[in-house]
Amino acid sequence: MTISRDDILEAYRFRHACKEFDSSRKVSDEDFETIMESARLSPSSFGFEPWYFLLVQDGGLREKLREFSWGGQKQIPTASHLVVILARREFCMRYDSDYVEGLMRNVQKLPDAAIEKKIAVYRKFQESDFKLLESERSLFDWACKQTYIALGNMMTTAAMLGIDSCPIEGFERDRVEEVLARDFGIDTDRFGISCMVTFGFRIREGREKTRQTMEEITRWYR
Amino acid sequence: MTISRDDILEAYRFRHACKEFDSSRKVSDEDFETIMESARLSPSSFGFEPWYFLLVQDGGLREKLREFSWGGQKQIPTASHLVVILARREFCMRYDSDYVEGLMRNVQKLPDAAIEKKIAVYRKFQESDFKLLESERSLFDWACKQTYIALGNMMTTAAMLGIDSCPIEGFERDRVEEVLARDFGIDTDRFGISCMVTFGFRIREGREKTRQTMEEITRWYR
Repeated sequence: MTISRDDILEAYRFRHACKEFDSSRKVSDEDFETIMESARLSPSSFGFEPWYFLLVQDGGLREKLREFSWGGQKQIPTASHLVVILARREFCMRYDSDYVEGLMRNVQKLPDAAIEKKIAVYRKFQESDFKLLESERSLFDWACKQTYIALGNMMTTAAMLGIDSCPIEGFERDRVEEVLARDFGIDTDRFGISCMVTFGFRIREGREKTRQTMEEITRWYR
Repeated sequence: MTISRDDILEAYRFRHACKEFDSSRKVSDEDFETIMESARLSPSSFGFEPWYFLLVQDGGLREKLREFSWGGQKQIPTASHLVVILARREFCMRYDSDYVEGLMRNVQKLPDAAIEKKIAVYRKFQESDFKLLESERSLFDWACKQTYIALGNMMTTAAMLGIDSCPIEGFERDRVEEVLARDFGIDTDRFGISCMVTFGFRIREGREKTRQTMEEITRWYR
């Protein structure tokens, strides 16, 4: 079973950063589950799934996020569904962390010898290839990168279902993390915020999409 | 026009990190154009499209990449198509860069007043909200994050067309950038490597997909 090129591209053209939703319309449970399942099935480096998703339907909690989110003023209150995407910090993502070993053992079901080998490769990758241990930030940013794969897939899945979305980076990271610790019960030693994404139905048509041409963003080596 | 939930999820389940391709099978031009178009239409923060795609079909150039890519030993030579995804560096992405202003003027077609306002918001975002100017690396990593949205979409589009893919982070970043400067003519003051991704057709079935459960990666606030 494949999907036609035209239907695929129609979905990518449908998607735009929807700045305000029709708050009277809700995404169905089945459609939202499909969006989340596409996040869950997303690939990540080494398969370590360094993400965690807060599904925020409570209006009071949304308001607390909105206070420090200049880029989500209209989307956060009007969205049918709001997802805060967290990424795992150094404490979880270092090559010698309990999280990484537990994931290999309990999710990936690797035998001991394979775990040992994979840790060695992962250590070299972190220490040398990508130099991720330079700072806490560089390791966290790397975990965030993986969450952007899931973010992209969630928005694409939504568009294929005829659902609008808006990704949100426009917030004060430090202040939002204080809110997450205080009001959401998140352990911010383990998790930091990567981004937010909202889903719902557009209240008006978006502006025409603008992009660089294919020639401006590609170079062939044949 | 929407696509059914089952068809969408079938594509996400079909996608896996394909470690070796059937080198006798090629992705059609039309399908590869669709994959690239889904990258081009991907969203990015502020709409600044901080990406550039090297489409590497030349066998000699692929070999030069493979030399420093332990994670792509089988994929790079057997893939029908290999894409090196670059991200723009500080030189292009700072709030006061020519690239950013040119993109707002020539691609987004914003009037002068809107450009001035957007630059002010972008400057605050970089300086304060996300503290991206802490280091060259933090700004570059942020640009890389945006490219992972495009990366995710390219792999999802491929899967929907029945095409396999493998993302590759397993390389020595510094050495590959030397190759890009020397053999690909890339200005590495402006661009750095984010990741690679290969496309083609699996030569054997992949292992069963493993993932944490939905309960392990989500928390509801109702």
